[in-house]
Amino acid sequence: MLVTVDEAALRRLLDAVQVGAVTTDDALERLRRLPFVDLGFARVDHHRTLRQGMAEAVYGPGKTPEQCAEIVAELLTEPGPGPVLLTRADDAQVAAALDRNPGGQRTGSAPSTVCWRPAAPRAERVVVATAGTADLPVADECAATLSAHGLEPARLIDVGVAGVHRLLASADVVADADAVVVIAGMEGALASLIGGITPAPVVAVPTSAGYGASLGGVTALLAMLASCAAGLTVVGIDNGFGAACAVLRMLK
Amino acid sequence: MLVTVDEAALRRLLDAVQVGAVTTDDALERLRRLPFVDLGFARVDHHRTLRQGMAEAVYGPGKTPEQCAEIVAELLTEPGPGPVLLTRADDAQVAAALDRNPGGQRTGSAPSTVCWRPAAPRAERVVVATAGTADLPVADECAATLSAHGLEPARLIDVGVAGVHRLLASADVVADADAVVVIAGMEGALASLIGGITPAPVVAVPTSAGYGASLGGVTALLAMLASCAAGLTVVGIDNGFGAACAVLRMLK
Amino acid sequence: MLVTVDEAALRRLLDAVQVGAVTTDDALERLRRLPFVDLGFARVDHHRTLRQGMAEAVYGPGKTPEQCAEIVAELLTEPGPGPVLLTRADDAQVAAALDRNPGGQRTGSAPSTVCWRPAAPRAERVVVATAGTADLPVADECAATLSAHGLEPARLIDVGVAGVHRLLASADVVADADAVVVIAGMEGALASLIGGITPAPVVAVPTSAGYGASLGGVTALLAMLASCAAGLTVVGIDNGFGAACAVLRMLK
Amino acid sequence: MLVTVDEAALRRLLDAVQVGAVTTDDALERLRRLPFVDLGFARVDHHRTLRQGMAEAVYGPGKTPEQCAEIVAELLTEPGPGPVLLTRADDAQVAAALDRNPGGQRTGSAPSTVCWRPAAPRAERVVVATAGTADLPVADECAATLSAHGLEPARLIDVGVAGVHRLLASADVVADADAVVVIAGMEGALASLIGGITPAPVVAVPTSAGYGASLGGVTALLAMLASCAAGLTVVGIDNGFGAACAVLRMLK
Amino acid sequence: MLVTVDEAALRRLLDAVQVGAVTTDDALERLRRLPFVDLGFARVDHHRTLRQGMAEAVYGPGKTPEQCAEIVAELLTEPGPGPVLLTRADDAQVAAALDRNPGGQRTGSAPSTVCWRPAAPRAERVVVATAGTADLPVADECAATLSAHGLEPARLIDVGVAGVHRLLASADVVADADAVVVIAGMEGALASLIGGITPAPVVAVPTSAGYGASLGGVTALLAMLASCAAGLTVVGIDNGFGAACAVLRMLK
Amino acid sequence: MLVTVDEAALRRLLDAVQVGAVTTDDALERLRRLPFVDLGFARVDHHRTLRQGMAEAVYGPGKTPEQCAEIVAELLTEPGPGPVLLTRADDAQVAAALDRNPGGQRTGSAPSTVCWRPAAPRAERVVVATAGTADLPVADECAATLSAHGLEPARLIDVGVAGVHRLLASADVVADADAVVVIAGMEGALASLIGGITPAPVVAVPTSAGYGASLGGVTALLAMLASCAAGLTVVGIDNGFGAACAVLRMLK
Amino acid sequence: MLVTVDEAALRRLLDAVQVGAVTTDDALERLRRLPFVDLGFARVDHHRTLRQGMAEAVYGPGKTPEQCAEIVAELLTEPGPGPVLLTRADDAQVAAALDRNPGGQRTGSAPSTVCWRPAAPRAERVVVATAGTADLPVADECAATLSAHGLEPARLIDVGVAGVHRLLASADVVADADAVVVIAGMEGALASLIGGITPAPVVAVPTSAGYGASLGGVTALLAMLASCAAGLTVVGIDNGFGAACAVLRMLK
Amino acid sequence: MLVTVDEAALRRLLDAVQVGAVTTDDALERLRRLPFVDLGFARVDHHRTLRQGMAEAVYGPGKTPEQCAEIVAELLTEPGPGPVLLTRADDAQVAAALDRNPGGQRTGSAPSTVCWRPAAPRAERVVVATAGTADLPVADECAATLSAHGLEPARLIDVGVAGVHRLLASADVVADADAVVVIAGMEGALASLIGGITPAPVVAVPTSAGYGASLGGVTALLAMLASCAAGLTVVGIDNGFGAACAVLRMLK
Repeated sequence: MLVTVDEAALRRLLDAVQVGAVTTDDALERLRRLPFVDLGFARVDHHRTLRQGMAEAVYGPGKTPEQCAEIVAELLTEPGPGPVLLTRADDAQVAAALDRNPGGQRTGSAPSTVCWRPAAPRAERVVVATAGTADLPVADECAATLSAHGLEPARLIDVGVAGVHRLLASADVVADADAVVVIAGMEGALASLIGGITPAPVVAVPTSAGYGASLGGVTALLAMLASCAAGLTVVGIDNGFGAACAVLRMLK
Repeated sequence: MLVTVDEAALRRLLDAVQVGAVTTDDALERLRRLPFVDLGFARVDHHRTLRQGMAEAVYGPGKTPEQCAEIVAELLTEPGPGPVLLTRADDAQVAAALDRNPGGQRTGSAPSTVCWRPAAPRAERVVVATAGTADLPVADECAATLSAHGLEPARLIDVGVAGVHRLLASADVVADADAVVVIAGMEGALASLIGGITPAPVVAVPTSAGYGASLGGVTALLAMLASCAAGLTVVGIDNGFGAACAVLRMLK
Repeated sequence: MLVTVDEAALRRLLDAVQVGAVTTDDALERLRRLPFVDLGFARVDHHRTLRQGMAEAVYGPGKTPEQCAEIVAELLTEPGPGPVLLTRADDAQVAAALDRNPGGQRTGSAPSTVCWRPAAPRAERVVVATAGTADLPVADECAATLSAHGLEPARLIDVGVAGVHRLLASADVVADADAVVVIAGMEGALASLIGGITPAPVVAVPTSAGYGASLGGVTALLAMLASCAAGLTVVGIDNGFGAACAVLRMLK
Repeated sequence: MLVTVDEAALRRLLDAVQVGAVTTDDALERLRRLPFVDLGFARVDHHRTLRQGMAEAVYGPGKTPEQCAEIVAELLTEPGPGPVLLTRADDAQVAAALDRNPGGQRTGSAPSTVCWRPAAPRAERVVVATAGTADLPVADECAATLSAHGLEPARLIDVGVAGVHRLLASADVVADADAVVVIAGMEGALASLIGGITPAPVVAVPTSAGYGASLGGVTALLAMLASCAAGLTVVGIDNGFGAACAVLRMLK
Repeated sequence: MLVTVDEAALRRLLDAVQVGAVTTDDALERLRRLPFVDLGFARVDHHRTLRQGMAEAVYGPGKTPEQCAEIVAELLTEPGPGPVLLTRADDAQVAAALDRNPGGQRTGSAPSTVCWRPAAPRAERVVVATAGTADLPVADECAATLSAHGLEPARLIDVGVAGVHRLLASADVVADADAVVVIAGMEGALASLIGGITPAPVVAVPTSAGYGASLGGVTALLAMLASCAAGLTVVGIDNGFGAACAVLRMLK
Repeated sequence: MLVTVDEAALRRLLDAVQVGAVTTDDALERLRRLPFVDLGFARVDHHRTLRQGMAEAVYGPGKTPEQCAEIVAELLTEPGPGPVLLTRADDAQVAAALDRNPGGQRTGSAPSTVCWRPAAPRAERVVVATAGTADLPVADECAATLSAHGLEPARLIDVGVAGVHRLLASADVVADADAVVVIAGMEGALASLIGGITPAPVVAVPTSAGYGASLGGVTALLAMLASCAAGLTVVGIDNGFGAACAVLRMLK
Repeated sequence: MLVTVDEAALRRLLDAVQVGAVTTDDALERLRRLPFVDLGFARVDHHRTLRQGMAEAVYGPGKTPEQCAEIVAELLTEPGPGPVLLTRADDAQVAAALDRNPGGQRTGSAPSTVCWRPAAPRAERVVVATAGTADLPVADECAATLSAHGLEPARLIDVGVAGVHRLLASADVVADADAVVVIAGMEGALASLIGGITPAPVVAVPTSAGYGASLGGVTALLAMLASCAAGLTVVGIDNGFGAACAVLRMLK
Repeated sequence: MLVTVDEAALRRLLDAVQVGAVTTDDALERLRRLPFVDLGFARVDHHRTLRQGMAEAVYGPGKTPEQCAEIVAELLTEPGPGPVLLTRADDAQVAAALDRNPGGQRTGSAPSTVCWRPAAPRAERVVVATAGTADLPVADECAATLSAHGLEPARLIDVGVAGVHRLLASADVVADADAVVVIAGMEGALASLIGGITPAPVVAVPTSAGYGASLGGVTALLAMLASCAAGLTVVGIDNGFGAACAVLRMLK
């Protein structure tokens, strides 16, 4: 048996056993109660906010509408104030989840992000920049996730390097940010450019926008990883949610 | 001419020829009769159970409903008690096969696995674990194949490493298993983790769940093959049927 | 704090705390003592045999001769009877390890496998088959690992499919084995062929033998994973050690 | 200007110029008349049969039905007796081509091969073997192309290596063939096996049948190229037409 | 002409022009003087610390020893207190650079990192964890870069997932860190595991350690990008320097 | 702040400041006004023609019909005589753009190129050659872009190397061109052949025409890049627009 | 037991058993004696010439000089007149093989092909063409193998498509050949060109000559497989031996 | 027979035949004399300058020193004034070529470019820009080739995007060039940036500089092909020679 416990709590439990306040069987039982609920088709993780600093998002694809609705419901039973998210959900999943769990806010048409219990606003300055208009859906997912946690990012849309003055006009916003998310397909050069003009942490998101030699985002991914701008970090293709989570870890 | 014979049977045949009980022509004819039936579009293999310890499953994709039905029928003519399986079948294939061969049990909606003549229950403990909910269809195919051969696997669903305590809570079940099938997409890390906590044989199945850098299962596949947990073995992407067959070979 | 404990041992410990036989501090300390030793550059895992059914092998590449020697020494301090292995070691690593830890047996020239405290012989029949002569080093690593654990495999060398009668002449040995390791480079077709004539578990090892379209073993790897012989499992390229470990898990 | 001429014809033309039977201008004009017709969207090659030993087939995908019909019509205007083929045609293309050019014979449903003016039967023995039932469409395209040129191939369907006796039962047919086309997806091992039991030229066609690690035919392609059976040659994925053309070159 | 200027400085300059304190020509000249020095073979960037929050490191490979020495010298002429780094330098490069620029501290043997003018110690807690001993060179490069900027990271070496208790024993250190760098080759699963037990930002560095299916680090790279642990970010293969820079951006 | 200015303009501005004709604040404001318009979802670049010698084309995919229409409208507000292009537009995008901006000329059905304000005819001789009929859509996009800028290319369609005389018949046209665009899928050999018979700049466009080993254009792409014909340059797969732009840069 | 027998021989054997001329035990023994000799490290195949129409060549890489010498010696014990080949041998392997088996003829320096008992000259016209001078080693291996079997190929060296007239000058030789081997690296376009001007079977050999986008021969390999010249077949990268064997199969 | 002739010359020849000034046999012989010399191991192309606008360079790798020397000598026999180049030559090749053909000028150490008979200076402005110092060898090869043809390029070294002001300081040089060659490894973003600020033709050369995710230049290659800067063209990895040839075609 492998157990997860808080060391101070363990000491208190052991002390209670020693003084007879807790029986051995009860102690064993408590050690066995782990912080998740098994729904059969999913093990809902109630302590993710504590452990990782952000809520467990329900990732829509591959789940039935009913499963989405039930997992969201389970997460909302936890009394904590943290937000609950449903991501990349299609219309049926959104409908089922909202029907069972009223009060969620939907962002984007499809796929959509839905948020329940958004966090209070925070002051940090996050920039979400995209190279082109086609990168907008990924930027939307990223911004929705940040908003759910109280961060309203500034958006710089369509500032790709083919017209470098478009970015340079907003260079101050980038230079003064607390964190920057750069979203770009094709050759992904925007990430290097931004990495060179800001001391803030830069999270690069390659997108599958583009065609031919863009290879569905692989080109941008490789380019961002090979960037000559030191200290750039990268998340998976089209992973706007992951980039937002990375920012949340950094601004914790 | 290349022939497949049992050595003892060959000796008996030669003895029979020597004493004149069998003519040369008859002996030649018998040597020519090989253990399969040629349907024109398929050569049905009646001795696979004997040779490989499991039934020949009819793989649906690329076959017409009529072809599926006919191959199943041919396999059921063999008097042996072994199960007969139709895998990855669409609705039309299932309907045709069940119409001509009543009594099959269907698992999953589409694609489906259908089983005729399931084997009697067996006692070995097999675990089928998935990293996420989206891996369920592969787990279903694997479990249906095991069930057809008498093995009812324990299921651990959604125990991916992002919340490692979810797996650790069931660590005993994994450690005491006779065989474990680990089904995971994305980065496939669950296989390494399980490989580290059980002495049982572990068959890892990469799945195409996930997006972007998951590369349709290739990432999980490579990760499982490169695993630092010694003695892990891997089957092809989404190949729940193959993983079940591997377990059947091991528990033979 | 996350701890690894045996449930029965935990109950005994809690009982001892309750009756005052162990103080809270001592209990906490014991829970903290985990079954490994930290050498600074490595965390030596003394319980791997218990957890995984095979010894922790010291993988040579990337370690200094002194590091190899020290890790082996640490593993040999454990009183248990299990074998200790050093794998893929170059001459300097072998010399340093044997100098500090006499009594090891070396297999192969370079890279070499060295074994201390080999296990007693076991009766299971394991076959190690290679497609060509160039696959021998991988077969040697596999056989040395099996031998260290008491299994002396039968070897079928150079039985590739270009001369299928070479394998068929030994078909009985393959059909009657408890486990078969198939080692092949180039197109790796031997794995499919053997998978079709034995009910035993088959572990396929792609090798980097061959040139051009062999792509350093990737072709054989893909071919083995895509094999039409159901229930075949695969380990990484040239991973003779891993294949032996897989067999050890199966014959546990 | 670069011109294509027959040397003997050139000598005759020069002689005719020398004796005044042909004027310089006429000679120049003749040298300019090249053996193709420009339809605007295609340059129809009337001399391909002479140059390459087989007809120019009209490859359907990417052409409008009208373009298909017109190119076929143009090819049929050539008085020669050779066959004219339309390959991989969809229903609309077939309909348009047959409507304008009656008398074609269609093979397969969709995609289809259509043949006009099939050649007279020839005696060479060609074998078309497939590993599975799902490889049939490629085999059909190959056989239709061979038939158009007078060769009626023997078919061995579903003789993959997982049940090697299914092939061995027909080993004589393979060994005595003048040419063998092996069509296989997944791991493509059938090509190596057949290459090992026949002295005939073997043309291997990888197919996109299979899933996961089959990588849409790339695995079979690589495996066939890396085959340990010497003298095997390979054509592109699913290219049954190309394999037939290769056989036609060999049996010319 | 495109120029880089500080807006406040520009206003001061314009004011000075207006009042005649600076002539138009002088103003133009100042706008032309950009913050780098052109050595012919390199343009040394003196303002990188200001723009990106970390020093410009001199990357050794592909430069002559003399070039390395000269660029370091140029960077040291800048009066600022920031560190100057030479990375991945071979013995000749290190010797040349130290000979011309005494006082640098070398880390590792070859390739080495050399640091001049290290920053004063800082209090943030950074953890550098590696999956195996073979990942140490990358960890050394990362730690040397952090040290140069005043951060002394805690090191967890050889805590790969095959023996998960080795990491869990240090779980508190990971959970309480301000940033964690995870360095792993093979399947890279350690990143996912650590991502699941800490709310800190996690920078994953895939390494080229491992063989066969590790594909020189590509497997670990893909696995880290596809990780199920949300908010993980990744840098290029073996890029310990880049990971350190990413941490510096985050803790700025 | 980073600003883009013309050096002469900057001198005039500074002079004006010095003599008091322009205030400091006004000067700062002018320096801030950059040559683009921010529509929120796109930053329209009015000076691209000046900077790059060709118009900013609106790339349809990933934009709504309204966005396409609005960007086109914005570009047409610029008084300059240059053409405005909408590329790869579907029917809805074309309709919306033409509805709001009458007078555009559409080329191709879908995807389409639409051109407003085409440039006056120019005299340079550009050749657009394709290997097959299936490469026509890419040739159409390329020719439409050239036409918009006043160049009417000569077209050589279906001159692939399988019938080399088809190209050789038009060799003079190729040899005398000012620029040649070669569009080919499959093995892309036409580019090498044309590169060998003309001194003109040759821009090669790999296309996704073909199947199997064509790998969606990657084979042609690699072949063109590896061409033995010196001085060939390549653009991305199916990128007829990019090839036209490259020609425009060359003939500027 | 699976046995390989000639049907007529089997009938004679059965007749002999029936009339008592051969005992059952002797018959069984004869059926067991298969046509190879097991040397321990290799199974030498004496009947390959019969089965495949060419000798078993000893492939040098991965074998010790002694192993090479011994396998050659074993092959030479067979009384048949066929050639015996050692391929890709280094100097030590050649020396050992020639020392033990005098009379072999060596071709090339290193790697070398050595031939014993070359076959009598044959009349078929085979052409071996290379695109460049760097492809010569592969052409040498191919020609040496052909020569060993009595075929003296015509050589066309350095006739790549960048100077198409160099090939066209020898077009008659190509058009009249019985078989053509085309050897090319880089973009491999020569294969398509030759395929278009000859009706003979064309075997294309991609080579690893070239750099950058040649990808070690993969580009040429893909280009040859995707060739628009119908009926071209391909062997593995640098596989001059395999191409020769393919020709031998065709001219059998 | 396929022949290459100039149409006017053909007309003169035919006229001469008609009037008896040339016999049929002589005419045939002249038509047969093609513009190359066959050295056995190479077919030296004397008319490449005429056909392609640049000299045939002798590519060193894969040729013996003697072959290099002989081909250079053959090219120098041609009376024309064009330059003769030996590229990527090692020391032995350079020595042999210079020994036999005095007067060549060598550039770089090894690999070297050697030039005989350089062309007279020309006035066009070509810029060769590199992202880093490690890209210098490719820039040297490119510049040496341009110089041989009379073009002395301006060099911008180490202007990568991580410090964008380094490039912007030279923006005028780039904007006013007649052609720009951009040489960059890693993520290759410099090409996009330069493409955005100049109307000149831009030839991008990916280099193998960088490590890890640079994938030996493939990342830069893909990024350049997928560039958002329209009209960029690309040559193969490290192909500085090819880029120079492309410029020569453009400025012809």
